Amino acid sequence: APVNMALACDSVRYYSLMPYYGINVWSILKHDTLVMTVDAAKKVQARLLHHLSRRDPAGLRNPDWDEPQATHFTGHYQPDRTQSINCHTQSINCHTQSINCQLKVSIVIIKSLIFTKFKATLSMPDDSKSDEKPSGSDKETAKDSVFKRPSVIPKHRQDLLKWNGWGYQDSQFAVTNQRTLTFTGQRYQLSGSEMPALVEWMEKALGASIDQRSPAKFTRPENIPPPVQVNADFMSAIRQLGLSHSDAGPDRLFRGHGHTLEEMFTLREGMFPRLPDLVVWPTSHREVVELVNLANRCGVVLIPFGGGTSVTGALLCPPGERRMIVSLDTSQMNRILWLDERNLIGRFEAGIIGQDLEARLAELGYCIGHEPDSLEFSSLGGWVATRASGMKKNVYGNIEDLLVHVTFVTPTGVIEKSCAAPRVSVGPDVHHLIMGSEGSLGVVTEVTLKIRPLPQTRRYGSLVFADFASGVRCLRELALRRCAPASVRLMDNEQFQFGHALRPAASGWTTAFVDAVKRFYVTRVRGFKPDELAVATLLYEGTPEEVAQQEALVNSIAANHGGISGGEENGRRGYMLTFVIAYLRDLGLDYYCVGESFETSVPWDRVLDLCRNEECRSRGVTQPVLSTCRVTQTYDAGACVYFYFAYNYRGLPDPVHLYEEVENAARDEILANGGSLSHHHGVGKIRQRWYSRSVSEPAVAAVRAVKSRLDPNNVFACANLFEPAGGPDGQTEQKAKL
Amino acid sequence: APVNMALACDSVRYYSLMPYYGINVWSILKHDTLVMTVDAAKKVQARLLHHLSRRDPAGLRNPDWDEPQATHFTGHYQPDRTQSINCHTQSINCHTQSINCQLKVSIVIIKSLIFTKFKATLSMPDDSKSDEKPSGSDKETAKDSVFKRPSVIPKHRQDLLKWNGWGYQDSQFAVTNQRTLTFTGQRYQLSGSEMPALVEWMEKALGASIDQRSPAKFTRPENIPPPVQVNADFMSAIRQLGLSHSDAGPDRLFRGHGHTLEEMFTLREGMFPRLPDLVVWPTSHREVVELVNLANRCGVVLIPFGGGTSVTGALLCPPGERRMIVSLDTSQMNRILWLDERNLIGRFEAGIIGQDLEARLAELGYCIGHEPDSLEFSSLGGWVATRASGMKKNVYGNIEDLLVHVTFVTPTGVIEKSCAAPRVSVGPDVHHLIMGSEGSLGVVTEVTLKIRPLPQTRRYGSLVFADFASGVRCLRELALRRCAPASVRLMDNEQFQFGHALRPAASGWTTAFVDAVKRFYVTRVRGFKPDELAVATLLYEGTPEEVAQQEALVNSIAANHGGISGGEENGRRGYMLTFVIAYLRDLGLDYYCVGESFETSVPWDRVLDLCRNEECRSRGVTQPVLSTCRVTQTYDAGACVYFYFAYNYRGLPDPVHLYEEVENAARDEILANGGSLSHHHGVGKIRQRWYSRSVSEPAVAAVRAVKSRLDPNNVFACANLFEPAGGPDGQTEQKAKL
Repeated sequence: APVNMALACDSVRYYSLMPYYGINVWSILKHDTLVMTVDAAKKVQARLLHHLSRRDPAGLRNPDWDEPQATHFTGHYQPDRTQSINCHTQSINCHTQSINCQLKVSIVIIKSLIFTKFKATLSMPDDSKSDEKPSGSDKETAKDSVFKRPSVIPKHRQDLLKWNGWGYQDSQFAVTNQRTLTFTGQRYQLSGSEMPALVEWMEKALGASIDQRSPAKFTRPENIPPPVQVNADFMSAIRQLGLSHSDAGPDRLFRGHGHTLEEMFTLREGMFPRLPDLVVWPTSHREVVELVNLANRCGVVLIPFGGGTSVTGALLCPPGERRMIVSLDTSQMNRILWLDERNLIGRFEAGIIGQDLEARLAELGYCIGHEPDSLEFSSLGGWVATRASGMKKNVYGNIEDLLVHVTFVTPTGVIEKSCAAPRVSVGPDVHHLIMGSEGSLGVVTEVTLKIRPLPQTRRYGSLVFADFASGVRCLRELALRRCAPASVRLMDNEQFQFGHALRPAASGWTTAFVDAVKRFYVTRVRGFKPDELAVATLLYEGTPEEVAQQEALVNSIAANHGGISGGEENGRRGYMLTFVIAYLRDLGLDYYCVGESFETSVPWDRVLDLCRNEECRSRGVTQPVLSTCRVTQTYDAGACVYFYFAYNYRGLPDPVHLYEEVENAARDEILANGGSLSHHHGVGKIRQRWYSRSVSEPAVAAVRAVKSRLDPNNVFACANLFEPAGGPDGQTEQKAKL
Repeated sequence: APVNMALACDSVRYYSLMPYYGINVWSILKHDTLVMTVDAAKKVQARLLHHLSRRDPAGLRNPDWDEPQATHFTGHYQPDRTQSINCHTQSINCHTQSINCQLKVSIVIIKSLIFTKFKATLSMPDDSKSDEKPSGSDKETAKDSVFKRPSVIPKHRQDLLKWNGWGYQDSQFAVTNQRTLTFTGQRYQLSGSEMPALVEWMEKALGASIDQRSPAKFTRPENIPPPVQVNADFMSAIRQLGLSHSDAGPDRLFRGHGHTLEEMFTLREGMFPRLPDLVVWPTSHREVVELVNLANRCGVVLIPFGGGTSVTGALLCPPGERRMIVSLDTSQMNRILWLDERNLIGRFEAGIIGQDLEARLAELGYCIGHEPDSLEFSSLGGWVATRASGMKKNVYGNIEDLLVHVTFVTPTGVIEKSCAAPRVSVGPDVHHLIMGSEGSLGVVTEVTLKIRPLPQTRRYGSLVFADFASGVRCLRELALRRCAPASVRLMDNEQFQFGHALRPAASGWTTAFVDAVKRFYVTRVRGFKPDELAVATLLYEGTPEEVAQQEALVNSIAANHGGISGGEENGRRGYMLTFVIAYLRDLGLDYYCVGESFETSVPWDRVLDLCRNEECRSRGVTQPVLSTCRVTQTYDAGACVYFYFAYNYRGLPDPVHLYEEVENAARDEILANGGSLSHHHGVGKIRQRWYSRSVSEPAVAAVRAVKSRLDPNNVFACANLFEPAGGPDGQTEQKAKL
């Protein structure tokens, strides 16, 4: 005890005695000898090693200190690039190497209980519990705000986004006069353009008529029925914990559905049989843990809500659910927790939306590079739960390639690996239970992703082929030689013609002339037929040298298949249209037209036959069906193919049911032709009938067993992938036969 | 019924009537009109589509035909490269396109029950049930034998391999006279060389002495105790099924262990407490299914045995196991089932050994490119079960990148996806339950892997750095710029010096002179210190242009870190030593030296500190310990680091227990420094104590739930990853708390 130490030190003229957590370099340097007990040395070493290897340099889960406030955030983690050990404290930074060795020497040599007292200058590391931003220049402050900044999308999303359609309220296709369509707002490259050819295309391809509007008979959000189930215990606990929540109709409605055609129809024509009874907005991992434990105790259902862009019915509340349903909206958990420039990884809260993530990282010179078509609205947690894929996966990878670490909250506990190593063999990879769980096992709270420096150069391109088959063969060769650019997408003739219909009116005779010259070259000089040719759009990223090399190689390979370059502008346009395509469906729905996309992945040798057979199958529908496809991703062993179906339903009863039949027949055809159930959209509810057949019964049994173990009370009762055995609340789980 | 059809056809002058499965093109062409019932058309279409999309063109699981014999194999699947649908039958090949369209027309138009009888020339596809090889040239026959060929390793492996050490019997380090070591046999580049410097190195680095041999007191294989458990029902069923089996001591001993240091010690000094009671050699997926069902019914344990190269104790029989233990040896299931050149995939039986797989594919111009250090002996099934990694993963990927499809037999059923698409989102990926299962959930029978054309060029290289840290920084930059060659491995100074000790005696004064000149340049002109420098070995693969480009870029990046090229020869030597390193341990064990390797994956910024701290930790051992490390793989977010420990145990009691302490302390150090539990070796038994901490308790609970569901009777009772709850036979599974 201290008395003994004082006695022992009696003969020493000058000494300083301090507990282990007071150690600091300045004090050490003011003395001659550092003496520690074995225990003290072990504690200091443990603390150093903890900081060295922790996954969250902000100390969010450091056992030594009190739990930081929920609103704690950290500044930009800029590690010292010398060989010294990384710690936040600048002083330890300079000297830790010598201390580390000295510590180990101390363990062996000195075993006596003598302390040397240091002149106590307790300097705590910078990452303390306080919320104060570190002082500094404006640049510092701007940088810090990148880490914690509200989303572009407001908390009450219906203030900015459509409650009954896709995207922003201020952006939609609209009729200006009888014969021209325009795109409203100012957000997109297409905004403000007039598209004279689009109406003609709609009438020709779909038999629609600009004079025949199909009025929506929607229930206004203000008239939404009140919550059907309120769990009093849960409500009082929520209030006590101070969690932000709402039971207002518009908030509940917005979070009660995704964006399948059926859900859009329901919004326009009626009402969903069941909506969430409450919306809760947690702001940290810890609040989510409390929420999940609470729901488990009270018998309440949680449905995680990220971007709400699901196209599998995943967000629909099961109509037979008798317990209270709570929408767990992650949008207010959207911080960048830290960036690690040495390992090129970063940690993010799961509610961060794609456009916010990329915009904020870009300010710091980085990107994730994950660009799904839903980038503007979908969330990181949703990407993980659905096994998302992005346009530029050739460079950055799909979500399973980007994911380094994830924290996943289940009613049984928090799943997270103990380290962030790049690749491990530690039994079955639990990350792959989390990815694809589609909201049925738990909720993602924090994710560590790879980050990359922004590319130096970005260039678009396009290729024109005589027909779709030549284009497919070219893409297959790009995949074979592993030289595909960041993105390559091949559209068939219908989409090429549709792309033309979206062209703004020529701004002057020069543009019209140039276009005519191009058309002449393509169709007369090269002999491509306008009704058969296919176009691929390309995106290159890298250093200027890399991009030039890639482009030369791709063009030479295209030439092997009779393809010619269509120029950079057509490529750019193709990609700029990516984010407006989703708005087309709302236009169609106003004119008795339904349209939907669905996708698959398929081996290379099945691509062409699959596309042809899909088209044949669609002919079986009594309406003239617009059926078109595009190859959107290339892999070693196959490709991702997207299909678009659209038709005019005027005069037909029950158009949604008819559409369901068409889609199911289409999926049967895909599966019969060797295509998968889904490349990246997932199973949700709409594809459950094929789930067991796709992965085999014992595999379903295994996933069900995981569900029963991690969520025995079926808190996460969205009923995606499969209906839980034994009814919604899992009460008869044990008795039910799997 | 046929009577009605005959009556209906009465007015037709000539007709042929046949059931749907008799349809063939020649007959069709001999008539004018093809009329089918809707049902017939659907059946034919289903059959065509089945062949189009099946994963096994050999028709091994075609529901239309009888199950083929277990010894069925198929010839080289060389699909027609035209746009027509791929079928084996040559006639259908030419005309299917027209038939397909015509079929669809027929469905819509013709709905009457009229058959036209074809002149019956039933031509069955080539892939019939018969075992006859298709006739053809010698080249054809040679090609076909590539698909079905016995392994280089004989069925009774101890006839060729050591029963008490690593590798071939004819290959080992041996003392020629007092001061020189040689490597016997003729299999390796090193074979036959004399290594004068090696003895000196052993004495200096390890304090060993050539005069002090540690004799092995092993139990001769002939004196192995008989089986302890014989299940009579199981034995009679085995005989009835005609499954090859053996209860001979040598066969059982060989399959009762892997290659950890502890297991080698046990072989040399004693005997394992428990061995398999029987060895069974199934020859097909179907026999494995029968075996597993049988074991489940009879209450018998199955331990799958592939190459036997486990280094985690995975193959050790749990000593407390009271049921009969059967070693399921997959080595006789080693066929190449088919190759698909259009999709660049191939299907292989799980018992195929690495060296056989690559040698046979090379004859056809292809490779997998998966080259673990155990390539000569390890099996495809073992790679899948342990999440294996290979030297050239930068080009070909690790096992999770190579795997397209897998068939996995569990007591509950066979797990396999229904299609071989390259990437899917169909819930949690069940392939990742199979990969890493380490023999505890079931057994792999067949695997579809990506194949690649053999590289045009293969070139070795090496780089010399002033110190290990510079080398690590260079490797980090290669990873950052994503330009690492097929393989890059950085060894520290100790391994560089050890590599020198393995040099054969210089063949003449020229070689000695050249070496001296090189040394002079490296140490005097460039100023590298022989006791500090580090060397990286490199392997480039690709077209000559690609290789030249890669090499130029890598050399320029190395120069950024003060590295210079060490020449091609040193690189080649480095890689050639890969397969002989494993023989060193047996040499050491003869002279009181123990050595073991272990590996981890770790983020980039932890690599140097981890290596330094490992070294410090090892100093805590009272013996002088040879501690050395090498970086063997680079990733975006980190690296794989291999450690080698060796020391002289003469005079110490219980060297194995001491070694276990050293290894556990080392692993604690690795984990504290942010390294993973294992990059690719797996958990097995030796790392179970850290398993829960590594993946988190709920994750372990999830995996246990899968185990309970798929293998409720604990047939796969190897007890890897974790001890099953409720005892070995799972009897008290339900009652036991997880």
